[in-house]
Amino acid sequence: MFPMTVPPGSLFERLRTACTADWQAYVDHAFVRAMGAGTLPEASFRHYLGQDALFLIHFARAYALAAFKADTLDDIRAAGRGMTAILDEMGLHVAFCRRWGLSESALQALPEARATLAYTRYVLERGLAGDVLDLFVALAPCVVGYAEIGRALAPLSHPGHPYAEWIDQYAGEAYQGVAADAMATLDGLFARRGGEGRMPELIRTFRDATRLEADFWEMGWTLAS
Amino acid sequence: MFPMTVPPGSLFERLRTACTADWQAYVDHAFVRAMGAGTLPEASFRHYLGQDALFLIHFARAYALAAFKADTLDDIRAAGRGMTAILDEMGLHVAFCRRWGLSESALQALPEARATLAYTRYVLERGLAGDVLDLFVALAPCVVGYAEIGRALAPLSHPGHPYAEWIDQYAGEAYQGVAADAMATLDGLFARRGGEGRMPELIRTFRDATRLEADFWEMGWTLAS
Amino acid sequence: MFPMTVPPGSLFERLRTACTADWQAYVDHAFVRAMGAGTLPEASFRHYLGQDALFLIHFARAYALAAFKADTLDDIRAAGRGMTAILDEMGLHVAFCRRWGLSESALQALPEARATLAYTRYVLERGLAGDVLDLFVALAPCVVGYAEIGRALAPLSHPGHPYAEWIDQYAGEAYQGVAADAMATLDGLFARRGGEGRMPELIRTFRDATRLEADFWEMGWTLAS
Amino acid sequence: MFPMTVPPGSLFERLRTACTADWQAYVDHAFVRAMGAGTLPEASFRHYLGQDALFLIHFARAYALAAFKADTLDDIRAAGRGMTAILDEMGLHVAFCRRWGLSESALQALPEARATLAYTRYVLERGLAGDVLDLFVALAPCVVGYAEIGRALAPLSHPGHPYAEWIDQYAGEAYQGVAADAMATLDGLFARRGGEGRMPELIRTFRDATRLEADFWEMGWTLAS
Repeated sequence: MFPMTVPPGSLFERLRTACTADWQAYVDHAFVRAMGAGTLPEASFRHYLGQDALFLIHFARAYALAAFKADTLDDIRAAGRGMTAILDEMGLHVAFCRRWGLSESALQALPEARATLAYTRYVLERGLAGDVLDLFVALAPCVVGYAEIGRALAPLSHPGHPYAEWIDQYAGEAYQGVAADAMATLDGLFARRGGEGRMPELIRTFRDATRLEADFWEMGWTLAS
Repeated sequence: MFPMTVPPGSLFERLRTACTADWQAYVDHAFVRAMGAGTLPEASFRHYLGQDALFLIHFARAYALAAFKADTLDDIRAAGRGMTAILDEMGLHVAFCRRWGLSESALQALPEARATLAYTRYVLERGLAGDVLDLFVALAPCVVGYAEIGRALAPLSHPGHPYAEWIDQYAGEAYQGVAADAMATLDGLFARRGGEGRMPELIRTFRDATRLEADFWEMGWTLAS
Repeated sequence: MFPMTVPPGSLFERLRTACTADWQAYVDHAFVRAMGAGTLPEASFRHYLGQDALFLIHFARAYALAAFKADTLDDIRAAGRGMTAILDEMGLHVAFCRRWGLSESALQALPEARATLAYTRYVLERGLAGDVLDLFVALAPCVVGYAEIGRALAPLSHPGHPYAEWIDQYAGEAYQGVAADAMATLDGLFARRGGEGRMPELIRTFRDATRLEADFWEMGWTLAS
Repeated sequence: MFPMTVPPGSLFERLRTACTADWQAYVDHAFVRAMGAGTLPEASFRHYLGQDALFLIHFARAYALAAFKADTLDDIRAAGRGMTAILDEMGLHVAFCRRWGLSESALQALPEARATLAYTRYVLERGLAGDVLDLFVALAPCVVGYAEIGRALAPLSHPGHPYAEWIDQYAGEAYQGVAADAMATLDGLFARRGGEGRMPELIRTFRDATRLEADFWEMGWTLAS
């Protein structure tokens, strides 16, 4: 059962359907299951959390790139809002990290893990080699996948659950709205810049990015540097 | 007499000194003189104003590009603030245009003049072919030049002067601070990414951008499309 | 009467049809007519020729950008051939310029005219903000337009005509083949990356580039710097 | 003992000295040692070889990017030659792969391993976020490192050694000249675009790229996908 409302016929649905096995390996990764069960080792979560902070920096850069590539004032504003939202979220993230024993100075000294480097640079390079549709397709597994994971784990969250705060954030209305917006943005971009001929390459990008997201969980799971 | 406080030995001072004739042709253009004297034809000002609105869109994109190219969170935030400031300013600009008889829908239907196209694309291309220092050097004639022009015209402004609002804005403390920040940013970038070997090309970029700014006044002055 | 074989239903035909007036203003510019009639002042032709040499540098960069943006080895090779062809052509161009009294050192010292700067940077920026289809659409007025002009002027060429060499080059089989290839490349790209939703923006890019090509003739015609 | 002639005081020497441990982990990786000893499992070599073919595609794109970012005709030509050399080498590489049982169609169907993706996209993204010096520093561990490895393994090569062809190629005069040119190019770029302030970031880029090269051997060694 898929818990999130994915508009039928939407570009996101088509992309996800084309990569079902890779998608499952990502949203149902051992890390995710253990987080839901509350059995995920703290060290794994902390390792993931630190790398996620580094990830967000490049994620903000990706929205900046989208703003540069925009053709209309509305699109610049939308990308700018996305970028500002991430930069603001960074403040919350830093506070969250602190509660998990990761001080801001520790965060800043963190070396970037291979999985972080691979995913973030892949997304940015797609956005530069291709257009803004390629860029947003490369971002979609992250933005929408977290909403799906949040909703899937929501029934397992309860006061005292070690990862309740994480789950509640991504299952919450605000983040679910972010994911819904991202799906609508994809459809809007596909209408303006898409075409059936682009599907094979968009699917390839979506699949690559999904695999790189699964690698990100694996990095937390195995504490890989 | 140069009215603005340019830090001696700053990169901006070195660049301006290397292009004195081009710089004078820009900040002392007939359009500027006539604006100060209050004799500039309304049609010229309105033409300039509309193109300036189109210019700002690409200016915001240039800051987005700087955010993408940034290496640190602080630099991303700084570029993001620059971008947001321009997008916010756009609201004021639209209101200002309306008072000059340019409605928002008229603005949106405006075809881009050659001078607008040439300058904006030049800046963006410099930022992509080069690095963030090349980008900010290409932006400097605009950001700092307007502060210099504002201060030079300030003594001519008075209630009832047709262009008082424009002059007061750029002569005002807020904008003068923007220009001072821009000069400090250039010095910081030169310390981190510069070197004497870069000067010839940076001077060339600064001179090209200065000429393109002079062309922008000329476009308003001659009502060129 | 349109002298070149433009495949009916091709992307190029659709773009040209959407900008008929701008296209005519470009391919039938006073500079072109005077070149055909053999009455174009030598100074105009020489000015154009020097700027065209500077133009070719950025044109080579545009093909390099296409190679970077390519997704397949075949596309990289094709763009690489385009780039190498331009670099090789530069040798011929230098020899041609010499016969018109422009030495290689004179060429290198030439300041870039506004029209050269505007067109070249526009093309490169389109290619970076958009994808490889946007890039090739921005290049098309130049690549295909010269073939059309060459064929239109061919009946006027004869031994002793001052511009016979220029006309014969662009009217010749080799260059006509280049233009035919360019149109086929556009169709291939549109099949893989296009879609009806992209047409308004592609038309806008094509029109802007066509206007900038007309400006290039105007620059030669008026000896503008 | 370091077998290759690295110019004392050159940028490459400074970068390598700043990352000694990472550099050793790369040029002296178990994969390299086993290749020299002739004990490397064929499966590992074949896996590496296939991914190296995919790597070369993006390597050609990196030189295309350098050509786009170039400011002078000479630099465009130099980058163009680098790109053409890689595209030509691809032919040899395909023949070499065939002798190892990897047909051209098998090569084309090969999925990209994470290590390939991570390194190649990192290099391209560096070149786009930074300038051409950042780009060439990110490429240096590959270009120069293979020459060092070639020379280090050369004494172990002999007729009948399973990896003699690989070793002889990189130890040979032609490739050693490529590496020497690459070091000279770095010095030329540092003179024109460098400065001491850039060293910390250049070192970081060089170290990241060196780690990603070591990961590439590890990928072959462990047959990682």
